[in-house]
This record gives sequence, structure tokens and C-alpha cells, in this order.
Amino acid sequence: MDSIKMNIQYVYNWLPEEDILKQGANAIACNRALYDGSREGSDFLGWVRLPSSITDDQFKEIESTAESLRSACDVVVVVGIGGSYLGARAVIDALNNSFDRLQTKRDHPLIVYAGNNLSEDYLYELIKYLENTSFGIINISKSGTTTEPAVAFRLLKDLLEDKVGKSEARNRIVAITDAKKGALRTLASMEKYKTFVIPDDVGGRYSVLTPVGLLPIAVAGFDIRKLVQGAATMEKNTGPNIAFEYNLSAIYAVIRNELYKKGKKIEILVNYHPKLHYFSEWWKQLFGESEGKENKGIFPAAVDFTTDLHSMGQWIQEGERTIFETVISIKEPNYRVEIPYDSQNLDGLNYLAGKRVDEVNKMAELGTRIAHVEGGVPNILIEIPKLDEESMGKLIYFFEKACGISGYILGVNPFNQPGVEAYKRNMFALLEKPGYEDETKAIKQKLSTLYKG
Amino acid sequence: MDSIKMNIQYVYNWLPEEDILKQGANAIACNRALYDGSREGSDFLGWVRLPSSITDDQFKEIESTAESLRSACDVVVVVGIGGSYLGARAVIDALNNSFDRLQTKRDHPLIVYAGNNLSEDYLYELIKYLENTSFGIINISKSGTTTEPAVAFRLLKDLLEDKVGKSEARNRIVAITDAKKGALRTLASMEKYKTFVIPDDVGGRYSVLTPVGLLPIAVAGFDIRKLVQGAATMEKNTGPNIAFEYNLSAIYAVIRNELYKKGKKIEILVNYHPKLHYFSEWWKQLFGESEGKENKGIFPAAVDFTTDLHSMGQWIQEGERTIFETVISIKEPNYRVEIPYDSQNLDGLNYLAGKRVDEVNKMAELGTRIAHVEGGVPNILIEIPKLDEESMGKLIYFFEKACGISGYILGVNPFNQPGVEAYKRNMFALLEKPGYEDETKAIKQKLSTLYKG
Repeated sequence: MDSIKMNIQYVYNWLPEEDILKQGANAIACNRALYDGSREGSDFLGWVRLPSSITDDQFKEIESTAESLRSACDVVVVVGIGGSYLGARAVIDALNNSFDRLQTKRDHPLIVYAGNNLSEDYLYELIKYLENTSFGIINISKSGTTTEPAVAFRLLKDLLEDKVGKSEARNRIVAITDAKKGALRTLASMEKYKTFVIPDDVGGRYSVLTPVGLLPIAVAGFDIRKLVQGAATMEKNTGPNIAFEYNLSAIYAVIRNELYKKGKKIEILVNYHPKLHYFSEWWKQLFGESEGKENKGIFPAAVDFTTDLHSMGQWIQEGERTIFETVISIKEPNYRVEIPYDSQNLDGLNYLAGKRVDEVNKMAELGTRIAHVEGGVPNILIEIPKLDEESMGKLIYFFEKACGISGYILGVNPFNQPGVEAYKRNMFALLEKPGYEDETKAIKQKLSTLYKG
Repeated sequence: MDSIKMNIQYVYNWLPEEDILKQGANAIACNRALYDGSREGSDFLGWVRLPSSITDDQFKEIESTAESLRSACDVVVVVGIGGSYLGARAVIDALNNSFDRLQTKRDHPLIVYAGNNLSEDYLYELIKYLENTSFGIINISKSGTTTEPAVAFRLLKDLLEDKVGKSEARNRIVAITDAKKGALRTLASMEKYKTFVIPDDVGGRYSVLTPVGLLPIAVAGFDIRKLVQGAATMEKNTGPNIAFEYNLSAIYAVIRNELYKKGKKIEILVNYHPKLHYFSEWWKQLFGESEGKENKGIFPAAVDFTTDLHSMGQWIQEGERTIFETVISIKEPNYRVEIPYDSQNLDGLNYLAGKRVDEVNKMAELGTRIAHVEGGVPNILIEIPKLDEESMGKLIYFFEKACGISGYILGVNPFNQPGVEAYKRNMFALLEKPGYEDETKAIKQKLSTLYKG
């Protein structure tokens, strides 16, 4: 089975190979720190050895829980926000039929997402939809008190218990939460929900290979063993004793940091397959939340090409030269479609007749890379063999490892997120949450003066 | 009916009101140039007076065509890329049920999109899906030779003719294209397709209020007269003789240019309602393609909050201070959901019991705006009364007008897109398209040396 390939040729105009190699020793030291816990955030390194450490019993427990949800439900609502849904959605969307939601027959439950927004209309329409379906819930929250998922779970738990009764509802609700503490753990114990543990040493954005990601992915009908196997391959290929020249994650981490020093402030993750859209969303959280602190960090953006060549393409080709691109290329599509011959040929496409659509897509990809490099945009290519579980597992661990190394190179703690509390404190103060009396007073004062109107 | 409101209070820390007012005369001069055609791109100003100029007959023609597609088809495939689908999708997604694709009964055809990528798997799965549905096609292309839509239309036209026969297929295909020239016009004349015209003086990214956007929106069951009426209101409110202080588009255009001069290089369009996701995609094309040239222009990005507060929130709160936010706020949701009381209150949410979900969403919005302003992120608030046709029309024209003014302030031609040809030339050369023999030779030479591997 091929592994991930990386082509860095198209960065040499900005970053000669020797300048990359000069950074190798530092990158490898950063990688080792992820194993010996000698740097900041060492309490959150559980993801590093995770793929190789998942046991057969753990797989079996997830698979059997997925099976029981599958037999009981046509729809499974994944309740979670941020890292509690992005990893699962990234993998499920990548592997699913593009028109999954339009299928009339399906072997596995449909996965829908909730608790990842506070839109009243979204929740109303979700409840209306679920009223006529046989559904279950996977509730994912470390604390059980995060506002978005907690609000959604209150509503959906009531709906489910009204529909099927309290005791059947218990069979259709799975909680993924802290091992001991927290509201959801307490509720799960009282209600005797099936539960899985979110490890203390794995942060949300690194949690896709824990039950947080694996259970929804298994429910959706995908092979979590192959997914983890792919990740384990990259765990091995980026291990602490792998030389820099062979450690793709380390090379990628070095290149992005060197480009950042040279004023490339925005990294655009590019795909040529719409199914990877949510993988890019997962990637944006991984790098944005890990590096965007202390007034530094590359701004992570993403585009789906060729779609967005007709929207963001102009800016990328000729806007400020402060960007670089990382392209995810898929070597082989899963299906085959040839461009038909047309006797009239009014559209002038007969020169493509008999070619596979993917051949055209690949030439768009290569032609775009050349156009962007010549337009002043450095370009990294990451190739996976196929859109399947194993490749997705490789891609996930490749980026997780690269992010850990990259954050250490940047000089930040890649495993905390101090900035996400600021809006929550304000929101609780504005909502007069018990315990926030002082903050409520302070923010009302602010609103009456500085921030009025 | 309320109009759009704008709150610019949260930019004053960076941009005092007087500094904004100083730019008023220039902004109004730029606005006037959109009417007198005295500046660059004057061949593409058809959108400026478009809303007020659409006649009852034009509405009737679109509505009756929509009606005949509706009666013949369960699914209508919109074939188009860039401005040929983004405007329609922005409006349809904003007004549709969040779970439209999961509805079993529907009053109007389901809209699916094609010709906006070159993914072989996407096309394969689309064809498989359409084989079992009663579908029609709206083919949108000025030339009829743009690769993505042309490839998709070849495949879908064959499929439809095989399914229902050539003559019934003619009743189910509508072409929106150039008035006289081009492959699609020629084909439509030969096949006697129903056609609509893409005006010569309206560029793709400004075309949503032409049949390009209006027909798909009407087919999806929405009121295009109210949509255009909303746009016409903003056309009036941003007219050439409106004073700067009352011209919201001009004020917004000034603020973003002044912030850009002060080093705010990235604008993030923020919503708190997932239905606006594609409106942000439309907005990214509008501003990115209009301003991203001559190595300048704000980089347009977008987030869906509160969802992305748990992914991009950390970067926005504490990353490089080179960003500002424009928040689209919706005053009133369309539905009502209250947070239920829970006797156990393990999740501690009872302080919200009886509150509407939107009250919490609004406090998240206000709390986030304050947190971001205090974190160094200037913040513009744009409020619409409701998510309905009229408000969407207002929002569309507000941004179109702002974009025209903003581009002139920036000193670029906001109506061309010279950079989008670069990748196409390379792609055609690599695909050995007839007429590109020299380019093919040149790019093969490049690949054998400079860009190998």
C-alpha cells in the first residue's frame, strides 16, 4: 500500500533545499519533545502514540456499540462542537457518497450534527425532521456543560424520551465524556447510558482517533481499524528516531515556519475533491487553534478547487503575495467516468473525448500549481493514493504530528487554547449565569458606555 | 419593513468617526462613477440599476419557466461555476429548510449543483443518483465552453436524452447564456431550448439578480419579486445623490479600505446562522475577485459562528492582529424554540430555561464582538430584520454596491478578473487543446526542467 508522498519542489524559489535541511535538527528535537514531554503542553500528548496503542477490545467495544445503534436507528445525531464533531465529519464526508443525504436506501444510519451552533431555526427544523424518524444520539462533551451541545442535548433527549419512552431512549443514547468528572458523566451513570471516555491527555482537536471520532465513523459504516492502521503507519514513519529527510511531518512543519518568517502569513489548504471540504475544516481548527496565539501564527484558510478557482482564484493569482498553498492530491479516484464524444462538438470538448474526468482534474491541478508558483505563491503537494480509510488515517496523523512539531518550532504551546474562553465569559455575564455576578455588573457598565449602540 | 442597519461603533478604537467622514467625498465620487461610467470597467455596470429595471414581463417569463420545470421535474440540476451558481446557492440555502435534502415530501424541485468541479467521483455519484430521478437541467454559461460546466452538461444531456428521449429532454433543459454568441447559444438555437440572456454588461459575480440567479431561485420556490424588491430598496438607498452619512455601502467601503491601510489585511465575514454559509462564499467571490489584483486587496475569509468559535476562535482572539470582522446579524429568527427546564439541572442550564435559543445566540454574538474588539479585532455589525427574500435582496445589493465603491477607492478595476486565465492556459496546454500547440511545447519544456517532479 502506497504511503503519503510530498513534493516540495515548488517552494524552492523561496526556500532552497539547503535552507530546509538546516532546520532539520531543530525539527527533530521538537518531534522528540512530543515523546519525552520535555516542552509545554506535555499533559496533552496522548495522541502521539494513540494509533499504535488502540487494542482489539477497544475496537470491538466501539464496533458493537455502533452495531446496536445501527440496528435501533435510521438516524444518529452527533451532538458536539469543535473537536467533538469535526474529525468525525471530516472522515465521514470524505468517504461517503457525495449525495448521501439524497439516498433512499442505506445500509447504515444517516449521521446528522447538532450542538455545534445556537441557531434557533436550525434546532427547530432538526426537531421537526427527527419527529418522523427513528433516531439515536451520540452526545460528545468532556464536561457536559458546553452551552451549544448542552442546549441541543436537552432538547433532543426530551424529544427522544417522548417518542420512544425513557427506557428505550437509554438504549439509543451514547455518551462520550470524561472518565470520572462532569455533568455528562454523572447523567450517564444515573441513566445507565453506554459511555466512552475522552482521555485526559488528548485535546479536542486531536481526538478524532479516540471514541470521539471512531464511534460516529463506525456508525456511518466505515472501517475504523483501517483508519487507525493508516494513522499507525504515519506514527511509525514520523517516530522520534526517524531522520529529518524521511519525516514528512517534520519537513512540512519546517517549510511552513520558514515561509511564515518570509512573510507568508496565510496558508491555503487546497483540494480538488469536494469530499475533502470538511477535512479542511478539521485542519483549520488543528492549526489555527494550536498556533494562533501570542499575536502570531499562520492564518489557516481553505479552498475547494476547481470550484473556488472561479471565486478565490483571482485573489490567489494576483492579490497580496503573503500566501502559500498546501495541495492535497488524490492519485486514483474511486469511480470511472469518461468524457463522451459529441458529433457536433459545439463546446469544443472532443479533444477530451475518451479521457477520464480525473485526467482533466489532474491537469487543472498541475496547471494551477505552475500558475500560482509563477504568480508568487509557494506550493507544497501532498499526495494520497486513494480516498479510503487508510489514506485518511495517514493524512490525519501526518497533520497532527506536523502541527505538534510546527507549534514547538513557532515557540508556542500547541496544546492549549486560552483565547476561546474570552467570548464565553462575556456570554455568561450577559446571560447572567449564576456565579458571574461580578462579570455581569462589569459588562453592563461597559455596554452603557464604551460599547453602547 | 425595516431596512439594513449598520453599527460601526466597534471600529472607532482604530478609526475615529471623523476619519471615516473625511473619506466621504471620495467614496461618493466613486459611487457616482458607477452611474456615469467615468472609471475603469465601465462596460460592466449593468448591475447598478438592475433591480429597479426588471420588468413584470421579465419576472413572468422566469416564473412560468420555473413553473414548467417544476411540473416536469423532481430534481433540477444547476450546471454552472463561480458566479453562475454561487448567487443562486447563497439565496436558496439561506431561505431553505436546513434539512431540505432530507425532506421526503417537497412542493418544489430539489436543486443540485454540477459543473462546479472536475471530481470524477462527484460526477459518477451524481449520475447514479439522477438515473432514478425525474430531472431537468439549467445550464448556465456565457460561452458554453468553460471546461467544468461543459463536461458536466455533456454527461447530463446524454443521460437525460437516454432517460426521456430527445424531445422531452428539450422541454427539461433551459440555457442561460450570451444573447447571440457562443457554443451554448448555438446549441440552444439548434435544440430549441428555452433560453435566458446573461447581459453583456453584468459580470458573473454580479449576476445573481439576472436570470442566472433568479431562475434557480424561482424553481426552488422562493419569491424573486420580493428578492429584487429588497435589492431595489438598497439601490435607492445607495443612489448617486445619497449623502455619505446615509449611504451604508459607501460607509462600509470606506471603513474596510481605511482598516486595510492600517494593516488589517484579512476581513472575516461572520454569521451566527449556518444557512448563511453560502452567502459568505458568494461574498468571498464578490470581493476577492473584484479587489485581489495588482498585488493588493483584502483577503476575504468567512466563519460560521458559534460553530467556528470552537475552531477559528482561538486564532481570531489571539493570533496576528491583522484582521477585522464584518458580522451579519439576523434580528428575528423564523421559528421559536425555548430551552426547556430540567429538574435535575446537571448541565446547569436552568438559568436559561424558558429563554429562546436565539437569546443565547445573540448574547454569544454580543459577547464575542466585545471579546474580539478587546482582543484587537475591529468589528462592523450589519443587521437584517429576518432571513427572507427581501432581506437577502437588500444584503446582496448592499455588498455589490459596497464592492464597486471599495474597488474604486482601492484603485483597481473591480469588474475584471485577469488572473483567472493563468491556470486555464496551463491546463489547456497540458491537455494539448487544439490551438495551444505553442503553449504545450513551452509547458512541457518547463516540466522537464524547472517544474519537474
